[in-house]
Amino acid sequence: MKFYKKKYDIIVIGAGHAGCEAAFAASRMGCEVLLLTIDLDKVAAMPCSPSIGGMAKGQLVKEIDALGGVMAKISDASAIQYHTLNTRKGPAVQSTRTQNDKNRYQQIMKSTLEKDERIDLKQAMVEELVIENKAVQGVVDKTGFGFSAPIVILATGTFLQGRVHIGSRSFDAGRAGEFAAMGLARSLGDHGFTLGRMKTGTPPRIHKRSIDFSEFNRQESDENPTPFSYATPRVTRPMLCSYMGNTNMTTHDLVRQNLKYSALYGGFIKGQSARYCPSFEDKIVKFPDRESHQVILEHEGLETNEIYASGLGNSLPLEVQIDIVRSVKGLESAEIMRPAYAIEYGYVNPQQLYPTLESKEVQGLFMAGQINGTSGYEEAAAQGMWAGINAGCKVQQRPAFILDRSQAYMGVMVDDLVTRGTREPYRMFTSRAEYRLLLREDNADLRLAEKGFDLGLVDKNSLERTREIQCATHREISRIRQTIVKPTAAVNQWLESAGSTPLTTGAKLDQLLKRAQLNYSTVDHIAAPEIPVTPRVKRQVEVELKYEGYIARQVREIKKFKDMEKIKIPSDLDYKEVHGLSNEMREKLLKIMPESLGQASRIDGMTPAALSVIMVGISALRRSSHS
Amino acid sequence: MKFYKKKYDIIVIGAGHAGCEAAFAASRMGCEVLLLTIDLDKVAAMPCSPSIGGMAKGQLVKEIDALGGVMAKISDASAIQYHTLNTRKGPAVQSTRTQNDKNRYQQIMKSTLEKDERIDLKQAMVEELVIENKAVQGVVDKTGFGFSAPIVILATGTFLQGRVHIGSRSFDAGRAGEFAAMGLARSLGDHGFTLGRMKTGTPPRIHKRSIDFSEFNRQESDENPTPFSYATPRVTRPMLCSYMGNTNMTTHDLVRQNLKYSALYGGFIKGQSARYCPSFEDKIVKFPDRESHQVILEHEGLETNEIYASGLGNSLPLEVQIDIVRSVKGLESAEIMRPAYAIEYGYVNPQQLYPTLESKEVQGLFMAGQINGTSGYEEAAAQGMWAGINAGCKVQQRPAFILDRSQAYMGVMVDDLVTRGTREPYRMFTSRAEYRLLLREDNADLRLAEKGFDLGLVDKNSLERTREIQCATHREISRIRQTIVKPTAAVNQWLESAGSTPLTTGAKLDQLLKRAQLNYSTVDHIAAPEIPVTPRVKRQVEVELKYEGYIARQVREIKKFKDMEKIKIPSDLDYKEVHGLSNEMREKLLKIMPESLGQASRIDGMTPAALSVIMVGISALRRSSHS
Ligand SMILES: Cc1cc2nc3c(=O)[nH]c(=O)nc-3n(C[C@H](O)[C@H](O)[C@H](O)COP(=O)(O)OP(=O)(O)OC[C@H]3O[C@@H](n4cnc5c(N)ncnc54)[C@H](O)[C@@H]3O)c2cc1C
Ligand SMILES: Cc1cc2nc3c(=O)[nH]c(=O)nc-3n(C[C@H](O)[C@H](O)[C@H](O)COP(=O)(O)OP(=O)(O)OC[C@H]3O[C@@H](n4cnc5c(N)ncnc54)[C@H](O)[C@@H]3O)c2cc1C
Repeated sequence: MKFYKKKYDIIVIGAGHAGCEAAFAASRMGCEVLLLTIDLDKVAAMPCSPSIGGMAKGQLVKEIDALGGVMAKISDASAIQYHTLNTRKGPAVQSTRTQNDKNRYQQIMKSTLEKDERIDLKQAMVEELVIENKAVQGVVDKTGFGFSAPIVILATGTFLQGRVHIGSRSFDAGRAGEFAAMGLARSLGDHGFTLGRMKTGTPPRIHKRSIDFSEFNRQESDENPTPFSYATPRVTRPMLCSYMGNTNMTTHDLVRQNLKYSALYGGFIKGQSARYCPSFEDKIVKFPDRESHQVILEHEGLETNEIYASGLGNSLPLEVQIDIVRSVKGLESAEIMRPAYAIEYGYVNPQQLYPTLESKEVQGLFMAGQINGTSGYEEAAAQGMWAGINAGCKVQQRPAFILDRSQAYMGVMVDDLVTRGTREPYRMFTSRAEYRLLLREDNADLRLAEKGFDLGLVDKNSLERTREIQCATHREISRIRQTIVKPTAAVNQWLESAGSTPLTTGAKLDQLLKRAQLNYSTVDHIAAPEIPVTPRVKRQVEVELKYEGYIARQVREIKKFKDMEKIKIPSDLDYKEVHGLSNEMREKLLKIMPESLGQASRIDGMTPAALSVIMVGISALRRSSHS
Repeated sequence: MKFYKKKYDIIVIGAGHAGCEAAFAASRMGCEVLLLTIDLDKVAAMPCSPSIGGMAKGQLVKEIDALGGVMAKISDASAIQYHTLNTRKGPAVQSTRTQNDKNRYQQIMKSTLEKDERIDLKQAMVEELVIENKAVQGVVDKTGFGFSAPIVILATGTFLQGRVHIGSRSFDAGRAGEFAAMGLARSLGDHGFTLGRMKTGTPPRIHKRSIDFSEFNRQESDENPTPFSYATPRVTRPMLCSYMGNTNMTTHDLVRQNLKYSALYGGFIKGQSARYCPSFEDKIVKFPDRESHQVILEHEGLETNEIYASGLGNSLPLEVQIDIVRSVKGLESAEIMRPAYAIEYGYVNPQQLYPTLESKEVQGLFMAGQINGTSGYEEAAAQGMWAGINAGCKVQQRPAFILDRSQAYMGVMVDDLVTRGTREPYRMFTSRAEYRLLLREDNADLRLAEKGFDLGLVDKNSLERTREIQCATHREISRIRQTIVKPTAAVNQWLESAGSTPLTTGAKLDQLLKRAQLNYSTVDHIAAPEIPVTPRVKRQVEVELKYEGYIARQVREIKKFKDMEKIKIPSDLDYKEVHGLSNEMREKLLKIMPESLGQASRIDGMTPAALSVIMVGISALRRSSHS
């Protein structure tokens, strides 16, 4: 076997959403990175929805951006629509979503990678992991050529033993038209990793010309949208709308009649699919009474006429797909350009990973993205960044970089994965984050920029900008708290015009701001600061003051949570010697090896009794090691 | 088996260079076309050189353009360099070559296809031809779904049983990273087609950053280039240069030492490779005394840093490739982004086709492009257009569209293919065209626009524009012929300044123009037309007058050639009954079934004696059928 002379610090396998962020993060920390991928023309491809962000995913993208990652910037550079979700709900659940020109997204990502001085981007299909004494040494590609590095990050997406299904037909493929990674899956098996099976799918693409858009409701892009990235000054490109329509009883009957021909329901697929992102067959079976489901038509790019038919993902034979699509109003003459399909693929149970995403079994082997049982570009990118940073920390012998559940959605996701594992494709939800009122899109940079800077990912200028926002917000909040508003005629006139009750006595400005009908413009009207603050600071002040009570409560909860996290479980705690644990719980603990009492508390089935038994075990161990 | 309800006039398999032109031509003639291709993201991909045109190929592109095709227009829209080859040689061998942004080329082709009202572009891998009673009925895809049409054009490139080789490793692939068409190859076999094997290859792609360009000579783009297409008014995009360098003895020794590991020389490849487009191993083996070979570095696009290393194509193991590349001056630190590879693939002997490119065995089945044993994007596109037009003619029950060897390079190529077949990948050369002085780039529209218009491919405006050029040229030529130049001082001063001998008596202006040192600017100086003519007309006048004698000679030759072509061989001529033919020649005649005495004369090994024997046979048959 011949090996490449150059020794890399880190090899990343797969230039998908996870692999790209991993490579960038590690490179920016100063590591020499080799990024290998099967097809250089498919870098950062979006095999499903032409969009980035959305509920809870938007938060992940903002966090990646705050830490110095690229997903948000490239989304801005390729966006063809912006939409902020949940604008009528609280700030915790507001999320940005862009629709993106897929080809532009790929092109920009590829050229950004190519420009990175410390990343070598190469086309190669990895077939083998080189592992010696339980430590990774490098990889070997399909031609038999090897590359060496003490750290390898696997970010292979749906490619491990990928199998595409359309009706009763199926064939090996990592995605439609791309080779599956069979050799690498075998190599993982040889090294003791067992692969589970999961399933996902994608709807058909329809030719624009064949759609009667008059039967759909237009959804326009937001006006003057806030860019995804803090680094994007302004969005100037032309924006496209999308189109909302509905399925009907004919559609549903067609699915019911043909269910036995579906790959999913005909018994051809064994992999576990996601409950929350169901295929169209799933929706019909699980909600038999629904008379219609939503269909959203989205552009796949500025230059193409391919339209993504969100909501119609299925694994039915092509002839049935055509009938189903054409039963929808406005799609009577639809021409399907790419059929819907389902894909089954291998994943690695993430409970086999440390919170750094490094394998517990094989030193230096990290895993990130869909390979860990997640789904979604954003989930993948966030894990990629996380693994890239931790790989960089390992190279530089710095402490691991772990954000806990109170610090970031990323932290919630990784903790969920390594502690509880996942049996269906895991995606982010705001409901998974206990402290979501603190983990908002609007404060991602305030939460994370300092950390990004310490890691070397965020530059001084960006950090200064963030610090200024932070300071200006604090300043303005304390000025508002100290401002007493007198019940003058002008004030009361403003309050009445805003639909709020007039004052009878003096009131504190922060109390006024907390009224449901009022927002920061009240401050501008009644007691504007001498030097005006930026819109960003206004927004920050408003959220922090209006939600002060809730935020304070979450901060108290976080304190309790942190106390538990602070109680570290020594890695030499022998669970076999801890009495009072059920066999099942002992096995779980041995598998997961939680790093703190906090993490242990989140293991599926953990009880307060078991937790105190562990606590006792820790104390005993401490005593014995002290003596 | 389920079939799509819509019945198409024509199904084209493969949206490569041949398939795209075929679809456009047929659509423009008014046919309903279905274009199926394996991966919609690889439409019109350029798997090898990032360029269009070049020696003799430029002529093909201009002919496609003159007939209303798209290749030239899309080349203009994606060009990053223009270079007219052989500007110091005669006009017959001058050819345009562009370097192109590969990704742009693909994007524009795809969106042009999508905008075509009569083309349905769909992603599907065809696995089976439906043939009944020796007539094609449709195709079936990998999912088991069928599409019907009485005409199918196969334009599957290198995909039939494609197999990629790098060193001793090989794997099924239509191109690197793409699935081979195994099912379709089997189906062709089932229907009696025997597939031969050919081989081609591509050089490595190198990261720009890793190249020391100071060791190379820059080659700039032409200034103010003439666009490829008659429809492109002007070229305005920024142009990039390319870089010329050389291999050396170290490079060559490395190849020699590792020859046994080469796929080509190690015995791993059986397919026939092209002599004229040799891999680097070939060059070393066949020219052992050469001390260096040229290497040209070309950009793969405006946005990417991938550099195409022309001249270094090989099928050696990756470790050897690296050493070879790095032995070249300026490439000492080269990082290979995509390795070189060779590909072996199945092709169909084109002698099984009529001059329309329709199969003799299966009615309605046409073949175009690499599947016919050719190589090159332009050769493929020209055949695609040819097959598309003839398929359209068949649908519309119009006579077949055949250009003969005196009318177009296309005609030369198709005649070569169907008459002589090819045992190695066939590419166009100017030397293949006997009448190349008439088949120039500069007159492609004058030769072909009328025909394109008759077919419905060229619009009225373009035709009018061409006719005007034609008229203006004739007018100006006859004016020049009638102009007598007096030996005035001014005239002689001009002649001397242009390096030509002064006049002593009056002379005809056309005689002056024929002098080697003079060109049309002489006319402008000495006897300019009242209304100035366009640069295009000047050029036309100049070529036609300067090469008048040669052209006249070719016209006479063409007359003889046409006389032979006019002698049609009745399809019921029974060669078994024609006495005096060798068995070998009889077999060839039976296989090729030439349509005219002219075509028969070009069969490999044909002798004057055999030809006159056939002539006798024809006369006998005529007599017997008359009586
Ligand atoms: C058909 C389909 C439908 C989907 N539907 C949804 C959906 O509805 N909702 C949703 O949220 N998500 C969906 N996804 C998932 C989403 O696309 C992925 O979660 C996301 O792209 C994962 O990112 P990743 O970086 O982990 O992997 P990917 O983006 O898949 O990238 C993997 C990369 O690894 C490379 N690679 C693989 N094996 C090797 C090897 N052996 N050697 C070298 N390189 C290798 C590949 O070339 C590829 O570039 C879908 C995916 C597919 C394929
Ligand atoms: C590695 C490599 C190196 C080359 N080097 C050179 C060179 O040095 N010089 C040169 O002149 N030429 C070279 N060529 C050849 C040149 O690329 C081709 O001649 C040209 O692209 C052929 O055009 P085509 O339209 O015939 O086929 P292609 O451009 O190959 O297109 C074929 C199309 O058919 C589709 N297809 C195939 N099978 C099916 C199916 N069953 N169902 C549906 N769709 C199908 C494919 O998806 C593809 O889109 C090279 C090609 C390769 C792959």
